[in-house]
Amino acid sequence: MPTYAKGLEGVIAADTKMSYIDGEQGVLEYVGIPIGELASHSTFEETVFLLWNLRLPRKGELESFTADLRSRYEVPAGFESKLLQMPRDARPMHVLRTLVSALSLHDTNPDANDLASLRSKALNILARTPTILAYYHRFRSGLPFVRPDPSLSIAENFLYMLNGRKPTPTMAKAMDVCLVLHADHGLNNSTFSARVVISTLSDMYSAIVAAIGSLKGPLHGGANEGVMVMLNEIPNLESVEKYVLDKLAKKDKIMGFGHRVYKAYDPRAAHLQSLAKQLAQDTGNADLYAKSKKIEDVMGQAVAAKGIYPNVDFYSATTYHCIGLPLDLFTPVFVIARIGGWAGHVIEQMSDNRLYRPTTDYTGPHAQAYVPMDKR
Amino acid sequence: MPTYAKGLEGVIAADTKMSYIDGEQGVLEYVGIPIGELASHSTFEETVFLLWNLRLPRKGELESFTADLRSRYEVPAGFESKLLQMPRDARPMHVLRTLVSALSLHDTNPDANDLASLRSKALNILARTPTILAYYHRFRSGLPFVRPDPSLSIAENFLYMLNGRKPTPTMAKAMDVCLVLHADHGLNNSTFSARVVISTLSDMYSAIVAAIGSLKGPLHGGANEGVMVMLNEIPNLESVEKYVLDKLAKKDKIMGFGHRVYKAYDPRAAHLQSLAKQLAQDTGNADLYAKSKKIEDVMGQAVAAKGIYPNVDFYSATTYHCIGLPLDLFTPVFVIARIGGWAGHVIEQMSDNRLYRPTTDYTGPHAQAYVPMDKR
Repeated sequence: MPTYAKGLEGVIAADTKMSYIDGEQGVLEYVGIPIGELASHSTFEETVFLLWNLRLPRKGELESFTADLRSRYEVPAGFESKLLQMPRDARPMHVLRTLVSALSLHDTNPDANDLASLRSKALNILARTPTILAYYHRFRSGLPFVRPDPSLSIAENFLYMLNGRKPTPTMAKAMDVCLVLHADHGLNNSTFSARVVISTLSDMYSAIVAAIGSLKGPLHGGANEGVMVMLNEIPNLESVEKYVLDKLAKKDKIMGFGHRVYKAYDPRAAHLQSLAKQLAQDTGNADLYAKSKKIEDVMGQAVAAKGIYPNVDFYSATTYHCIGLPLDLFTPVFVIARIGGWAGHVIEQMSDNRLYRPTTDYTGPHAQAYVPMDKR
Repeated sequence: MPTYAKGLEGVIAADTKMSYIDGEQGVLEYVGIPIGELASHSTFEETVFLLWNLRLPRKGELESFTADLRSRYEVPAGFESKLLQMPRDARPMHVLRTLVSALSLHDTNPDANDLASLRSKALNILARTPTILAYYHRFRSGLPFVRPDPSLSIAENFLYMLNGRKPTPTMAKAMDVCLVLHADHGLNNSTFSARVVISTLSDMYSAIVAAIGSLKGPLHGGANEGVMVMLNEIPNLESVEKYVLDKLAKKDKIMGFGHRVYKAYDPRAAHLQSLAKQLAQDTGNADLYAKSKKIEDVMGQAVAAKGIYPNVDFYSATTYHCIGLPLDLFTPVFVIARIGGWAGHVIEQMSDNRLYRPTTDYTGPHAQAYVPMDKR
């Protein structure tokens, strides 16, 4: 008897050794290591190595992995002219989906799916997506491109290319921690999209492009932008309680709260909260943090008993704002982080592939005649 | 207790009123109408109307639907320069995925997801994809673009833009029948990809782009190209039997045979077989058809008892070859047809959406320490 679970809730659709989530207990581990440990001690580069190799690297391994990644920061020859063809007012997620797709046109064998090729394509996409994003932002802002600096980490280099100056160590660290926290999260919708697409034996680009298209949705990665919009709508700390309670009374959704998986505090949100608090103080955004915290407190009294807590998007918004990211780059930055997870899942899927081909419940008519036009 | 069906086989992942498949009996219906009836009497435009509206159009409705579609054949202003930036040796499916994605950059509100907007975007994508594909083929062939002719159907217009001359009625009809036969097919992988992506409330472009990436895989739409490669590998009719039996002995896959869903003769293949036979005679490709038929006969004796029959890809290859399509445009033509199904499924998903968010079976370690670098 076929199973039908709407949205595939509770249906196991893949094995993974990458991340483990216990939504009841509020646990997230990458390859068994608690996310808080990684956020405190690791780096994004090391975390990606962990996800792709299922173990932490030794010193020389991390050095060569990082050097390889950095050697790929530059976009392919001829690619800058594509960027200059973009409309300046396009939405960054649409630009990113299009230009990551276009990277394959500069690959002499984009369909190669052996393990070495998949890893190489993943490194290219991971290394070049920040460049594409920073270049597009400079272009739309009427500023010259700042070429990538291979002496910098992904986090440092992205902020450097975006702003034209090297970030402070605090900023770079905050950016790096955000990338670690967002790198993987089980079979979320975008990761699932990537696994579904690669299961036809398509290619790494097609899988990542599908995932970008998924992540941009407001029920997924797009939610962090929604949180910032909400914070901007609330004029001051005194208005928070009424704003939240009015929304709840109207049964409107409060952006950044609740998660399909977590019925306890999202461990990523816990880490982001302390990060956002510190950053907000350092950057003169204490009022923004205070508004966020107040929203959390009001929500805590109103709905925490129902298992609705802040999710990863909630304190991401304050954090990204304090780092100086424009609102419409919040979700694209999530893309950079999650490429680590997506690419790892593509590799994992290909190691034991079976085509995803579910079935439908057909609820329409049967055995209808083709009625000729003049009889309709 | 969670279900685990590898590849989601047998798992119902959506309701649909669009197409119904009975794999045991070899039945395919669109909105209840047998596919053979539609292939014999309908047109691609009418079939798309049927899939999007769940009923056949009246005369005036079909006229205005068709007129609307034709009014959208031209690519947006500034789009041709993007085409001229493509490498001439890129693979058409990668070009198509990239340029359909780029269409959104010329849409002032690409994220609008109300029903009217979804339909309008679907019409734009359906109308412009043939233009993009024909233009790219002309460009890589060093030929000038042939602008679309709004007095022609999708099938006629595509062949006209591709070849620079209007197709014969036989060719146009064959192309149109292929589009009808490929327009929808339940929750195949690409259609599922589109539904998964739109379920984050992303947008029509992101969903269609994901589906294109899925369809290109050799386990899905890419298979029709594999069939043609096989036909080209077999030098003559006399070599067929040994070729097939040698492959079977080595447990190699014979392209174009077998289907996850059909354990009987694929009704699309049945229709395509007679189409291919007629076309092959008309176009001096009788030898190609004879090879195909011989492969089917050898396979029939060897494996039909196991429920392995020709699928839709098998006689598509001969048909497309006779129409004069280059090999690497076979799968892109499948894209044109299936946009009808994908867009309909996106609209259907949005009418009763629930985020797709399955779960994993985590098979890695737990509660690992973050071992510092010097202790590894």
